[in-house]
Amino acid sequence: MPRLLVIGTGLIGGSFALAMRQAGCFTHIEGHDADASVTKRARELGVIDAVANDEAAGIAAADAVLIAVPIPEIAGLVRRIAARVGHREVTVFDVGSVKGSVLDALRRDGGVPPWFVPSHPMAGSAQQGPDAADANLFRDRQVIVTPQPESDRASLDRVVGWWRAAGANVVETSTRIHDEMVALTSHLPHLIAFAFMSWVDGPHSGEPRDFAGPGLRDFTRIAGSDARMWRQILAENRAAVLAQYDGWSASLDTLVEHLRHGRLDELENVLASARAARGRLADRSND
Amino acid sequence: MPRLLVIGTGLIGGSFALAMRQAGCFTHIEGHDADASVTKRARELGVIDAVANDEAAGIAAADAVLIAVPIPEIAGLVRRIAARVGHREVTVFDVGSVKGSVLDALRRDGGVPPWFVPSHPMAGSAQQGPDAADANLFRDRQVIVTPQPESDRASLDRVVGWWRAAGANVVETSTRIHDEMVALTSHLPHLIAFAFMSWVDGPHSGEPRDFAGPGLRDFTRIAGSDARMWRQILAENRAAVLAQYDGWSASLDTLVEHLRHGRLDELENVLASARAARGRLADRSND
Repeated sequence: MPRLLVIGTGLIGGSFALAMRQAGCFTHIEGHDADASVTKRARELGVIDAVANDEAAGIAAADAVLIAVPIPEIAGLVRRIAARVGHREVTVFDVGSVKGSVLDALRRDGGVPPWFVPSHPMAGSAQQGPDAADANLFRDRQVIVTPQPESDRASLDRVVGWWRAAGANVVETSTRIHDEMVALTSHLPHLIAFAFMSWVDGPHSGEPRDFAGPGLRDFTRIAGSDARMWRQILAENRAAVLAQYDGWSASLDTLVEHLRHGRLDELENVLASARAARGRLADRSND
Repeated sequence: MPRLLVIGTGLIGGSFALAMRQAGCFTHIEGHDADASVTKRARELGVIDAVANDEAAGIAAADAVLIAVPIPEIAGLVRRIAARVGHREVTVFDVGSVKGSVLDALRRDGGVPPWFVPSHPMAGSAQQGPDAADANLFRDRQVIVTPQPESDRASLDRVVGWWRAAGANVVETSTRIHDEMVALTSHLPHLIAFAFMSWVDGPHSGEPRDFAGPGLRDFTRIAGSDARMWRQILAENRAAVLAQYDGWSASLDTLVEHLRHGRLDELENVLASARAARGRLADRSND
Protein backbone atom coordinates (compact mmCIF):
# COMPACT_ATOMS: atom_id res chain seq x y z
CA MET A 1 0.00 0.00 0.00
CA PRO A 2 1.19 3.49 -0.81
CA ARG A 3 2.48 6.31 1.34
CA LEU A 4 0.51 9.54 1.50
CA LEU A 5 1.84 13.05 2.02
CA VAL A 6 -0.72 15.67 3.03
CA ILE A 7 0.46 19.22 2.34
CA GLY A 8 -1.68 21.54 4.43
CA THR A 9 -2.86 19.67 7.53
CA GLY A 10 -5.79 21.90 8.47
CA LEU A 11 -9.48 20.96 8.48
CA ILE A 12 -9.64 19.44 4.98
CA GLY A 13 -6.19 17.86 4.81
CA GLY A 14 -6.52 16.56 8.37
CA SER A 15 -10.00 15.16 7.75
CA PHE A 16 -8.79 13.35 4.63
CA ALA A 17 -5.85 11.90 6.59
CA LEU A 18 -8.25 10.64 9.29
CA ALA A 19 -10.63 9.18 6.70
CA MET A 20 -7.73 7.36 4.98
CA ARG A 21 -6.51 6.05 8.32
CA GLN A 22 -9.99 4.68 9.01
CA ALA A 23 -10.26 3.17 5.52
CA GLY A 24 -6.73 1.76 5.64
CA CYS A 25 -5.81 3.02 2.16
CA PHE A 26 -2.22 3.98 3.05
CA THR A 27 0.58 2.38 5.05
CA HIS A 28 1.95 5.69 6.24
CA ILE A 29 0.62 9.26 6.29
CA GLU A 30 2.99 12.20 6.57
CA GLY A 31 2.01 15.83 6.90
CA HIS A 32 3.66 19.06 5.88
CA ASP A 33 2.36 22.56 6.54
CA ALA A 34 3.73 26.05 5.96
CA ASP A 35 2.90 26.61 9.63
CA ALA A 36 4.98 24.08 11.61
CA SER A 37 2.70 24.39 14.66
CA VAL A 38 -0.18 23.04 12.57
CA THR A 39 1.65 19.81 11.62
CA LYS A 40 2.89 19.46 15.20
CA ARG A 41 -0.70 19.66 16.44
CA ALA A 42 -1.90 17.23 13.72
CA ARG A 43 0.77 14.77 14.87
CA GLU A 44 -0.23 15.18 18.56
CA LEU A 45 -3.86 14.51 17.62
CA GLY A 46 -2.88 11.38 15.70
CA VAL A 47 -4.17 12.88 12.46
CA ILE A 48 -0.86 12.05 10.72
CA ASP A 49 1.81 9.44 11.46
CA ALA A 50 4.75 11.75 11.05
CA VAL A 51 5.77 15.32 10.31
CA ALA A 52 7.61 16.00 7.04
CA ASN A 53 9.54 19.09 8.04
CA ASP A 54 11.16 19.30 4.65
CA GLU A 55 8.65 19.57 1.81
CA ALA A 56 11.05 18.23 -0.85
CA ALA A 57 12.06 15.20 1.22
CA GLY A 58 8.39 14.51 1.99
CA ILE A 59 7.52 14.59 -1.70
CA ALA A 60 10.46 12.34 -2.57
CA ALA A 61 9.16 9.67 -0.16
CA ALA A 62 5.47 9.84 -1.17
CA ASP A 63 3.40 7.77 -3.60
CA ALA A 64 0.46 10.13 -3.29
CA VAL A 65 0.27 13.81 -2.40
CA LEU A 66 -2.85 15.63 -1.28
CA ILE A 67 -2.55 19.36 -1.85
CA ALA A 68 -4.70 21.22 0.68
CA VAL A 69 -3.17 24.69 0.50
CA PRO A 70 -4.61 28.08 -0.49
CA ILE A 71 -5.58 28.24 -4.17
CA PRO A 72 -2.93 30.81 -5.19
CA GLU A 73 -0.26 28.35 -4.02
CA ILE A 74 -1.54 25.21 -5.76
CA ALA A 75 0.04 25.65 -9.21
CA GLY A 76 3.46 26.48 -7.76
CA LEU A 77 3.31 23.42 -5.51
CA VAL A 78 2.38 21.16 -8.46
CA ARG A 79 5.43 22.57 -10.30
CA ARG A 80 7.72 21.82 -7.32
CA ILE A 81 6.32 18.28 -7.13
CA ALA A 82 6.90 17.81 -10.89
CA ALA A 83 10.50 18.96 -10.50
CA ARG A 84 11.04 16.56 -7.61
CA VAL A 85 9.38 13.36 -8.90
CA GLY A 86 10.69 13.34 -12.47
CA HIS A 87 9.50 10.11 -14.12
CA ARG A 88 8.68 8.30 -10.88
CA GLU A 89 5.04 7.23 -10.54
CA VAL A 90 3.06 9.51 -8.24
CA THR A 91 -0.56 10.59 -7.83
CA VAL A 92 -1.29 14.15 -6.84
CA PHE A 93 -4.66 15.75 -6.17
CA ASP A 94 -5.91 18.97 -4.65
CA VAL A 95 -9.03 20.16 -2.83
CA GLY A 96 -9.23 23.69 -4.23
CA SER A 97 -12.59 25.42 -4.64
CA VAL A 98 -11.61 26.87 -8.04
CA LYS A 99 -10.16 24.87 -10.93
CA GLY A 100 -9.83 27.07 -14.03
CA SER A 101 -7.31 29.59 -12.72
CA VAL A 102 -5.01 26.86 -11.36
CA LEU A 103 -5.09 24.83 -14.58
CA ASP A 104 -4.52 27.97 -16.66
CA ALA A 105 -1.47 28.77 -14.54
CA LEU A 106 -0.12 25.24 -15.01
CA ARG A 107 -0.65 25.36 -18.79
CA ARG A 108 1.14 28.71 -19.00
CA ASP A 109 4.15 27.22 -17.25
CA GLY A 110 5.08 23.66 -18.20
CA GLY A 111 1.67 22.06 -18.67
CA VAL A 112 -0.67 19.95 -16.56
CA PRO A 113 1.12 16.80 -15.35
CA PRO A 114 -0.78 13.56 -16.20
CA TRP A 115 -0.64 12.49 -12.55
CA PHE A 116 -2.37 15.64 -11.28
CA VAL A 117 -6.08 15.08 -10.61
CA PRO A 118 -8.02 18.26 -9.79
CA SER A 119 -10.63 17.49 -7.16
CA HIS A 120 -12.90 19.46 -4.84
CA PRO A 121 -14.91 18.10 -1.91
CA MET A 122 -18.19 19.95 -1.25
CA ALA A 123 -17.58 19.73 2.47
CA GLY A 124 -16.13 22.03 5.04
CA SER A 125 -16.98 24.00 8.08
CA ALA A 126 -16.49 27.44 9.53
CA GLN A 127 -14.16 25.62 11.96
CA GLN A 128 -10.52 25.43 10.98
CA GLY A 129 -7.32 23.59 11.77
CA PRO A 130 -6.46 20.00 12.67
CA ASP A 131 -8.50 20.15 15.88
CA ALA A 132 -11.64 20.37 13.74
CA ALA A 133 -10.56 17.45 11.51
CA ASP A 134 -13.20 14.74 11.24
CA ALA A 135 -12.86 11.31 9.61
CA ASN A 136 -16.51 11.59 8.50
CA LEU A 137 -16.33 15.09 7.00
CA PHE A 138 -16.67 13.70 3.45
CA ARG A 139 -19.22 10.99 4.19
CA ASP A 140 -22.22 11.32 1.81
CA ARG A 141 -20.78 14.59 0.48
CA GLN A 142 -20.13 15.31 -3.17
CA VAL A 143 -16.55 15.40 -4.41
CA ILE A 144 -16.14 16.97 -7.83
CA VAL A 145 -13.31 15.66 -10.00
CA THR A 146 -12.37 17.49 -13.22
CA PRO A 147 -10.18 15.22 -15.36
CA GLN A 148 -8.06 17.04 -17.95
CA PRO A 149 -7.08 15.99 -21.49
CA GLU A 150 -3.59 15.41 -20.03
CA SER A 151 -4.83 13.21 -17.14
CA ASP A 152 -3.92 9.55 -17.05
CA ARG A 153 -6.73 7.19 -16.18
CA ALA A 154 -4.82 5.25 -13.52
CA SER A 155 -4.18 8.39 -11.44
CA LEU A 156 -7.80 9.41 -11.85
CA ASP A 157 -9.06 5.99 -10.76
CA ARG A 158 -6.85 6.02 -7.66
CA VAL A 159 -8.06 9.46 -6.57
CA VAL A 160 -11.71 8.52 -7.18
CA GLY A 161 -11.14 5.34 -5.16
CA TRP A 162 -9.70 7.25 -2.20
CA TRP A 163 -12.57 9.73 -2.12
CA ARG A 164 -15.04 6.86 -2.27
CA ALA A 165 -13.16 5.17 0.56
CA ALA A 166 -13.70 8.40 2.52
CA GLY A 167 -17.45 7.93 1.99
CA ALA A 168 -17.92 10.59 -0.70
CA ASN A 169 -20.01 10.54 -3.89
CA VAL A 170 -17.69 11.37 -6.77
CA VAL A 171 -19.00 13.48 -9.66
CA GLU A 172 -16.85 13.98 -12.78
CA THR A 173 -17.34 17.18 -14.72
CA SER A 174 -15.49 19.77 -16.77
CA THR A 175 -13.42 22.61 -15.39
CA ARG A 176 -15.86 25.17 -16.75
CA ILE A 177 -18.98 23.52 -15.37
CA HIS A 178 -17.27 23.04 -11.99
CA ASP A 179 -16.33 26.70 -11.72
CA GLU A 180 -19.75 27.93 -12.87
CA MET A 181 -21.65 25.59 -10.58
CA VAL A 182 -19.61 26.25 -7.43
CA ALA A 183 -19.93 29.98 -8.14
CA LEU A 184 -23.68 29.29 -7.89
CA THR A 185 -23.84 26.80 -5.02
CA SER A 186 -21.01 28.02 -2.83
CA HIS A 187 -19.22 31.24 -3.80
CA LEU A 188 -22.30 33.44 -4.36
CA PRO A 189 -23.99 32.22 -1.13
CA HIS A 190 -20.81 33.09 0.78
CA LEU A 191 -20.70 36.55 -0.82
CA ILE A 192 -24.36 37.15 0.06
CA ALA A 193 -23.97 35.87 3.62
CA PHE A 194 -20.88 38.01 4.22
CA ALA A 195 -22.68 41.08 2.81
CA PHE A 196 -25.70 40.29 4.96
CA MET A 197 -23.64 40.04 8.17
CA SER A 198 -21.86 43.24 7.19
CA TRP A 199 -25.27 44.96 7.05
CA VAL A 200 -26.43 43.37 10.33
CA ASP A 201 -23.25 44.76 11.88
CA GLY A 202 -24.26 48.35 11.05
CA PRO A 203 -26.31 50.56 13.39
CA HIS A 204 -29.91 49.40 13.92
CA SER A 205 -32.74 50.34 16.26
CA GLY A 206 -32.23 47.21 18.37
CA GLU A 207 -29.62 44.62 19.19
CA PRO A 208 -29.61 41.92 16.45
CA ARG A 209 -28.78 39.14 18.93
CA ASP A 210 -32.06 39.79 20.75
CA PHE A 211 -33.96 39.05 17.54
CA ALA A 212 -31.86 36.15 16.26
CA GLY A 213 -33.47 32.75 15.82
CA PRO A 214 -32.21 29.45 14.42
CA GLY A 215 -33.17 30.46 10.87
CA LEU A 216 -30.83 33.46 10.97
CA ARG A 217 -28.04 31.33 12.43
CA ASP A 218 -28.39 28.77 9.63
CA PHE A 219 -28.57 31.46 6.96
CA THR A 220 -25.42 33.23 8.16
CA ARG A 221 -23.32 30.27 9.32
CA ILE A 222 -21.11 30.40 6.19
CA ALA A 223 -20.26 34.05 6.96
CA GLY A 224 -18.23 32.64 9.86
CA SER A 225 -15.70 31.33 7.31
CA ASP A 226 -12.14 32.56 6.98
CA ALA A 227 -11.89 35.99 5.33
CA ARG A 228 -8.46 35.44 3.73
CA MET A 229 -9.50 32.13 2.20
CA TRP A 230 -12.70 33.65 0.80
CA ARG A 231 -10.90 36.65 -0.60
CA GLN A 232 -8.79 34.20 -2.57
CA ILE A 233 -11.67 31.97 -3.70
CA LEU A 234 -13.79 34.93 -4.85
CA ALA A 235 -10.84 36.51 -6.67
CA GLU A 236 -9.80 33.25 -8.39
CA ASN A 237 -13.35 32.59 -9.62
CA ARG A 238 -14.28 36.22 -10.12
CA ALA A 239 -15.84 36.04 -13.59
CA ALA A 240 -18.10 33.11 -12.73
CA VAL A 241 -19.10 34.62 -9.38
CA LEU A 242 -19.99 37.96 -10.96
CA ALA A 243 -21.99 36.21 -13.69
CA GLN A 244 -23.99 34.31 -11.07
CA TYR A 245 -24.40 37.47 -9.03
CA ASP A 246 -25.76 39.41 -11.99
CA GLY A 247 -28.26 36.68 -12.82
CA TRP A 248 -29.40 36.23 -9.24
CA SER A 249 -29.63 39.95 -8.75
CA ALA A 250 -32.21 40.25 -11.51
CA SER A 251 -34.18 37.41 -9.95
CA LEU A 252 -34.08 39.11 -6.51
CA ASP A 253 -35.16 42.44 -8.02
CA THR A 254 -38.22 40.81 -9.55
CA LEU A 255 -39.23 39.35 -6.21
CA VAL A 256 -38.68 42.64 -4.37
CA GLU A 257 -40.68 44.57 -6.98
CA HIS A 258 -43.57 42.11 -6.52
CA LEU A 259 -43.50 42.98 -2.81
CA ARG A 260 -43.02 46.71 -3.36
CA HIS A 261 -45.97 46.93 -5.71
CA GLY A 262 -48.20 44.58 -3.74
CA ARG A 263 -48.27 41.87 -6.42
CA LEU A 264 -48.80 39.25 -3.74
CA ASP A 265 -50.00 36.38 -5.92
CA GLU A 266 -46.89 36.68 -8.09
CA LEU A 267 -44.78 36.92 -4.92
CA GLU A 268 -46.34 33.78 -3.49
CA ASN A 269 -45.81 31.90 -6.77
CA VAL A 270 -42.08 32.62 -6.64
CA LEU A 271 -41.91 31.63 -2.96
CA ALA A 272 -43.75 28.38 -3.70
CA SER A 273 -41.45 27.36 -6.54
CA ALA A 274 -38.37 28.37 -4.53
CA ARG A 275 -39.64 26.18 -1.70
CA ALA A 276 -40.14 23.25 -4.09
CA ALA A 277 -36.59 23.73 -5.42
CA ARG A 278 -35.26 23.71 -1.85
CA GLY A 279 -37.12 20.46 -1.30
CA ARG A 280 -35.35 18.90 -4.29
CA LEU A 281 -32.00 20.10 -2.97
CA ALA A 282 -32.66 18.24 0.27
CA ASP A 283 -33.65 15.01 -1.47
CA ARG A 284 -30.24 13.43 -1.30
CA SER A 285 -29.12 14.51 2.14
CA ASN A 286 -32.37 14.53 4.05
CA ASP A 287 -31.99 18.10 5.25
CA MET B 1 -54.25 26.90 37.94
CA PRO B 2 -55.77 28.34 34.78
CA ARG B 3 -57.19 26.73 31.67
CA LEU B 4 -55.47 27.40 28.34
CA LEU B 5 -57.05 27.52 24.91
CA VAL B 6 -54.66 27.29 21.96
CA ILE B 7 -56.18 28.61 18.73
CA GLY B 8 -54.10 27.23 15.87
CA THR B 9 -52.60 23.91 16.94
CA GLY B 10 -49.80 23.67 14.37
CA LEU B 11 -46.06 23.75 15.03
CA ILE B 12 -45.97 26.84 17.25
CA GLY B 13 -49.29 26.43 19.06
CA GLY B 14 -48.64 22.72 19.53
CA SER B 15 -45.10 23.27 20.81
CA PHE B 16 -46.34 25.84 23.31
CA ALA B 17 -49.02 23.41 24.52
CA LEU B 18 -46.38 20.69 25.00
CA ALA B 19 -44.04 23.09 26.80
CA MET B 20 -46.87 24.16 29.15
CA ARG B 21 -47.78 20.54 29.80
CA GLN B 22 -44.15 19.84 30.73
CA ALA B 23 -43.97 22.94 32.94
CA GLY B 24 -47.38 22.27 34.53
CA CYS B 25 -48.60 25.85 34.12
CA PHE B 26 -52.19 24.91 33.23
CA THR B 27 -54.73 22.40 34.55
CA HIS B 28 -56.31 21.86 31.18
CA ILE B 29 -55.27 22.66 27.60
CA GLU B 30 -57.84 22.82 24.83
CA GLY B 31 -57.16 23.34 21.17
CA HIS B 32 -59.15 24.89 18.34
CA ASP B 33 -58.08 25.09 14.70
CA ALA B 34 -59.77 26.27 11.53
CA ASP B 35 -58.79 22.87 10.14
CA ALA B 36 -60.53 20.26 12.32
CA SER B 37 -58.10 17.52 11.21
CA VAL B 38 -55.23 19.50 12.77
CA THR B 39 -56.85 19.61 16.24
CA LYS B 40 -57.83 15.96 15.90
CA ARG B 41 -54.20 15.05 15.20
CA ALA B 42 -53.00 17.30 18.06
CA ARG B 43 -55.36 15.45 20.39
CA GLU B 44 -54.19 12.03 19.14
CA LEU B 45 -50.58 13.06 19.75
CA GLY B 46 -51.40 14.21 23.27
CA VAL B 47 -50.43 17.78 22.41
CA ILE B 48 -53.76 19.04 23.82
CA ASP B 49 -56.16 17.56 26.39
CA ALA B 50 -59.30 18.24 24.42
CA VAL B 51 -60.64 19.64 21.18
CA ALA B 52 -62.73 22.82 21.35
CA ASN B 53 -64.86 22.35 18.27
CA ASP B 54 -66.69 25.57 18.90
CA GLU B 55 -64.39 28.59 19.06
CA ALA B 56 -66.82 30.71 21.11
CA ALA B 57 -67.42 27.97 23.69
CA GLY B 58 -63.69 27.35 23.95
CA ILE B 59 -63.06 31.05 24.60
CA ALA B 60 -65.85 31.19 27.18
CA ALA B 61 -64.18 28.38 29.16
CA ALA B 62 -60.58 29.68 28.97
CA ASP B 63 -58.49 31.76 31.37
CA ALA B 64 -55.75 32.19 28.80
CA VAL B 65 -55.81 32.12 25.00
CA LEU B 66 -52.79 31.63 22.79
CA ILE B 67 -53.43 32.96 19.28
CA ALA B 68 -51.31 31.04 16.78
CA VAL B 69 -53.11 31.83 13.54
CA PRO B 70 -52.01 33.62 10.34
CA ILE B 71 -51.28 37.32 10.90
CA PRO B 72 -54.19 38.65 8.80
CA GLU B 73 -56.58 36.79 11.14
CA ILE B 74 -55.16 37.92 14.50
CA ALA B 75 -56.98 41.26 14.91
CA GLY B 76 -60.36 39.75 14.03
CA LEU B 77 -59.82 36.95 16.52
CA VAL B 78 -58.87 39.39 19.29
CA ARG B 79 -62.13 41.26 18.52
CA ARG B 80 -64.16 38.03 18.78
CA ILE B 81 -62.49 37.20 22.09
CA ALA B 82 -63.24 40.72 23.40
CA ALA B 83 -66.89 40.32 22.44
CA ARG B 84 -67.07 36.96 24.20
CA VAL B 85 -65.22 37.68 27.48
CA GLY B 86 -66.76 41.04 28.38
CA HIS B 87 -65.38 42.07 31.79
CA ARG B 88 -64.23 38.59 32.79
CA GLU B 89 -60.49 38.29 33.51
CA VAL B 90 -58.57 36.68 30.66
CA THR B 91 -55.04 36.79 29.26
CA VAL B 92 -54.55 36.61 25.53
CA PHE B 93 -51.29 36.56 23.59
CA ASP B 94 -50.22 35.85 20.04
CA VAL B 95 -47.11 34.58 18.28
CA GLY B 96 -47.29 36.69 15.13
CA SER B 97 -44.12 37.72 13.30
CA VAL B 98 -45.41 41.26 12.68
CA LYS B 99 -46.88 43.55 15.34
CA GLY B 100 -47.57 47.02 13.90
CA SER B 101 -50.19 46.06 11.33
CA VAL B 102 -52.18 43.99 13.85
CA LEU B 103 -52.12 46.71 16.53
CA ASP B 104 -53.08 49.36 13.96
CA ALA B 105 -56.05 47.23 12.92
CA LEU B 106 -57.14 46.84 16.56
CA ARG B 107 -56.84 50.58 17.21
CA ARG B 108 -58.90 51.36 14.12
CA ASP B 109 -61.68 49.12 15.40
CA GLY B 110 -62.37 49.23 19.15
CA GLY B 111 -58.87 49.60 20.58
CA VAL B 112 -56.23 47.27 22.01
CA PRO B 113 -57.65 45.28 24.94
CA PRO B 114 -55.57 45.59 28.15
CA TRP B 115 -55.41 41.79 28.42
CA PHE B 116 -53.86 41.35 24.95
CA VAL B 117 -50.09 40.85 25.11
CA PRO B 118 -48.38 40.88 21.70
CA SER B 119 -45.56 38.35 21.69
CA HIS B 120 -43.33 36.68 19.12
CA PRO B 121 -41.04 33.69 19.68
CA MET B 122 -37.88 33.69 17.52
CA ALA B 123 -38.25 29.99 16.95
CA GLY B 124 -39.73 27.85 14.26
CA SER B 125 -38.87 25.36 11.63
CA ALA B 126 -39.54 24.63 7.99
CA GLN B 127 -41.57 21.71 9.41
CA GLN B 128 -45.24 22.36 10.08
CA GLY B 129 -48.22 20.94 11.90
CA PRO B 130 -48.74 19.25 15.27
CA ASP B 131 -46.52 16.29 14.30
CA ALA B 132 -43.55 18.68 14.33
CA ALA B 133 -44.52 20.15 17.73
CA ASP B 134 -41.68 20.03 20.23
CA ALA B 135 -41.82 20.88 23.96
CA ASN B 136 -38.29 22.29 23.67
CA LEU B 137 -38.85 24.48 20.60
CA PHE B 138 -38.61 27.67 22.68
CA ARG B 139 -35.79 26.57 25.00
CA ASP B 140 -32.99 29.18 24.99
CA ARG B 141 -34.77 31.06 22.19
CA GLN B 142 -35.70 34.73 22.32
CA VAL B 143 -39.33 35.68 22.76
CA ILE B 144 -40.07 39.31 21.99
CA VAL B 145 -42.91 40.93 23.92
CA THR B 146 -44.18 44.38 22.90
CA PRO B 147 -46.32 45.84 25.72
CA GLN B 148 -48.72 48.59 24.64
CA PRO B 149 -49.83 51.74 26.50
CA GLU B 150 -53.16 49.92 26.99
CA SER B 151 -51.57 46.73 28.42
CA ASP B 152 -52.16 45.80 32.03
CA ARG B 153 -49.13 44.66 33.96
CA ALA B 154 -50.71 41.51 35.42
CA SER B 155 -51.46 40.10 31.93
CA LEU B 156 -47.98 40.99 30.77
CA ASP B 157 -46.39 39.31 33.79
CA ARG B 158 -48.39 36.13 33.24
CA VAL B 159 -47.40 35.89 29.57
CA VAL B 160 -43.74 36.56 30.39
CA GLY B 161 -43.91 33.87 33.08
CA TRP B 162 -45.33 31.28 30.67
CA TRP B 163 -42.68 31.95 28.03
CA ARG B 164 -40.00 31.68 30.70
CA ALA B 165 -41.55 28.40 31.88
CA ALA B 166 -41.18 27.23 28.25
CA GLY B 167 -37.45 27.93 28.57
CA ALA B 168 -37.35 31.15 26.53
CA ASN B 169 -35.47 34.41 27.12
CA VAL B 170 -38.01 37.21 27.10
CA VAL B 171 -37.06 40.57 25.58
CA GLU B 172 -39.41 43.56 25.92
CA THR B 173 -39.32 46.17 23.21
CA SER B 174 -41.51 48.57 21.24
CA THR B 175 -43.73 47.66 18.31
CA ARG B 176 -41.59 49.72 15.94
CA ILE B 177 -38.27 48.26 17.04
CA HIS B 178 -39.72 44.74 16.88
CA ASP B 179 -40.94 45.18 13.33
CA GLU B 180 -37.71 46.83 12.14
CA MET B 181 -35.49 44.24 13.80
CA VAL B 182 -37.37 41.16 12.62
CA ALA B 183 -37.41 42.65 9.12
CA LEU B 184 -33.61 42.57 9.49
CA THR B 185 -33.06 39.27 11.27
CA SER B 186 -35.85 37.16 9.80
CA HIS B 187 -37.93 38.63 6.99
CA LEU B 188 -35.10 39.90 4.77
CA PRO B 189 -33.12 36.64 5.14
CA HIS B 190 -36.21 34.69 4.08
CA LEU B 191 -36.72 36.98 1.07
CA ILE B 192 -33.07 36.55 0.06
CA ALA B 193 -33.11 32.78 0.55
CA PHE B 194 -36.33 32.40 -1.46
CA ALA B 195 -34.88 34.58 -4.26
CA PHE B 196 -31.67 32.56 -4.16
CA MET B 197 -33.48 29.22 -4.49
CA SER B 198 -35.58 30.69 -7.26
CA TRP B 199 -32.34 31.48 -9.14
CA VAL B 200 -30.83 28.04 -8.37
CA ASP B 201 -34.00 26.57 -9.87
CA GLY B 202 -33.33 28.23 -13.24
CA PRO B 203 -31.31 26.58 -16.02
CA HIS B 204 -27.60 26.12 -15.26
CA SER B 205 -24.71 24.28 -16.87
CA GLY B 206 -24.82 21.52 -14.23
CA GLU B 207 -27.17 19.94 -11.73
CA PRO B 208 -27.14 22.04 -8.52
CA ARG B 209 -27.59 18.97 -6.29
CA ASP B 210 -24.25 17.61 -7.53
CA PHE B 211 -22.52 20.72 -6.23
CA ALA B 212 -24.45 21.19 -2.99
CA GLY B 213 -22.62 21.03 0.31
CA PRO B 214 -23.71 21.59 3.91
CA GLY B 215 -23.05 25.34 3.62
CA LEU B 216 -25.62 25.69 0.84
CA ARG B 217 -28.13 23.58 2.76
CA ASP B 218 -27.75 25.78 5.86
CA PHE B 219 -27.98 28.97 3.80
CA THR B 220 -31.17 27.93 2.03
CA ARG B 221 -32.95 26.00 4.80
CA ILE B 222 -35.36 28.89 5.49
CA ALA B 223 -36.45 28.84 1.83
CA GLY B 224 -38.18 25.56 2.71
CA SER B 225 -40.74 27.56 4.71
CA ASP B 226 -44.41 27.85 3.84
CA ALA B 227 -45.05 30.17 0.88
CA ARG B 228 -48.50 31.34 1.97
CA MET B 229 -47.30 32.22 5.48
CA TRP B 230 -44.33 34.14 4.09
CA ARG B 231 -46.46 36.01 1.58
CA GLN B 232 -48.48 37.23 4.56
CA ILE B 233 -45.51 38.09 6.76
CA LEU B 234 -43.73 40.01 3.99
CA ALA B 235 -46.90 41.87 3.05
CA GLU B 236 -47.77 42.77 6.66
CA ASN B 237 -44.26 44.11 7.34
CA ARG B 238 -43.67 45.44 3.84
CA ALA B 239 -42.34 48.92 4.68
CA ALA B 240 -39.79 47.64 7.19
CA VAL B 241 -38.70 44.77 4.92
CA LEU B 242 -38.19 47.11 1.96
CA ALA B 243 -36.23 49.55 4.13
CA GLN B 244 -33.92 46.76 5.28
CA TYR B 245 -33.64 45.47 1.73
CA ASP B 246 -32.64 48.87 0.38
CA GLY B 247 -29.97 49.31 3.06
CA TRP B 248 -28.57 45.83 2.66
CA SER B 249 -28.63 46.14 -1.10
CA ALA B 250 -26.26 49.11 -0.96
CA SER B 251 -23.98 47.16 1.34
CA LEU B 252 -23.99 44.17 -1.05
CA ASP B 253 -23.29 46.42 -4.04
CA THR B 254 -20.21 47.83 -2.33
CA LEU B 255 -18.86 44.34 -1.70
CA VAL B 256 -19.57 43.21 -5.27
CA GLU B 257 -17.91 46.32 -6.70
CA HIS B 258 -14.81 45.59 -4.60
CA LEU B 259 -14.69 42.17 -6.25
CA ARG B 260 -15.52 43.45 -9.73
CA HIS B 261 -12.74 46.05 -9.62
CA GLY B 262 -10.21 43.80 -7.91
CA ARG B 263 -10.09 45.84 -4.68
CA LEU B 264 -9.18 42.72 -2.76
CA ASP B 265 -7.90 44.34 0.43
CA GLU B 266 -11.16 46.25 0.80
CA LEU B 267 -13.05 43.04 0.02
CA GLU B 268 -11.16 41.12 2.67
CA ASN B 269 -11.76 43.86 5.25
CA VAL B 270 -15.51 43.58 4.75
CA LEU B 271 -15.37 39.77 4.94
CA ALA B 272 -13.33 39.95 8.14
CA SER B 273 -15.72 42.31 9.91
CA ALA B 274 -18.72 40.32 8.69
CA ARG B 275 -17.10 37.20 10.11
CA ALA B 276 -16.53 38.93 13.46
CA ALA B 277 -20.17 40.04 13.51
CA ARG B 278 -21.27 36.46 12.83
CA GLY B 279 -19.12 35.37 15.77
CA ARG B 280 -20.94 37.81 18.05
CA LEU B 281 -24.29 36.51 16.82
CA ALA B 282 -23.27 33.02 17.89
CA ASP B 283 -22.17 34.10 21.36
CA ARG B 284 -25.42 33.28 23.08
CA SER B 285 -26.38 30.09 21.33
CA ASN B 286 -23.00 28.51 20.67
CA ASP B 287 -23.63 28.06 16.98
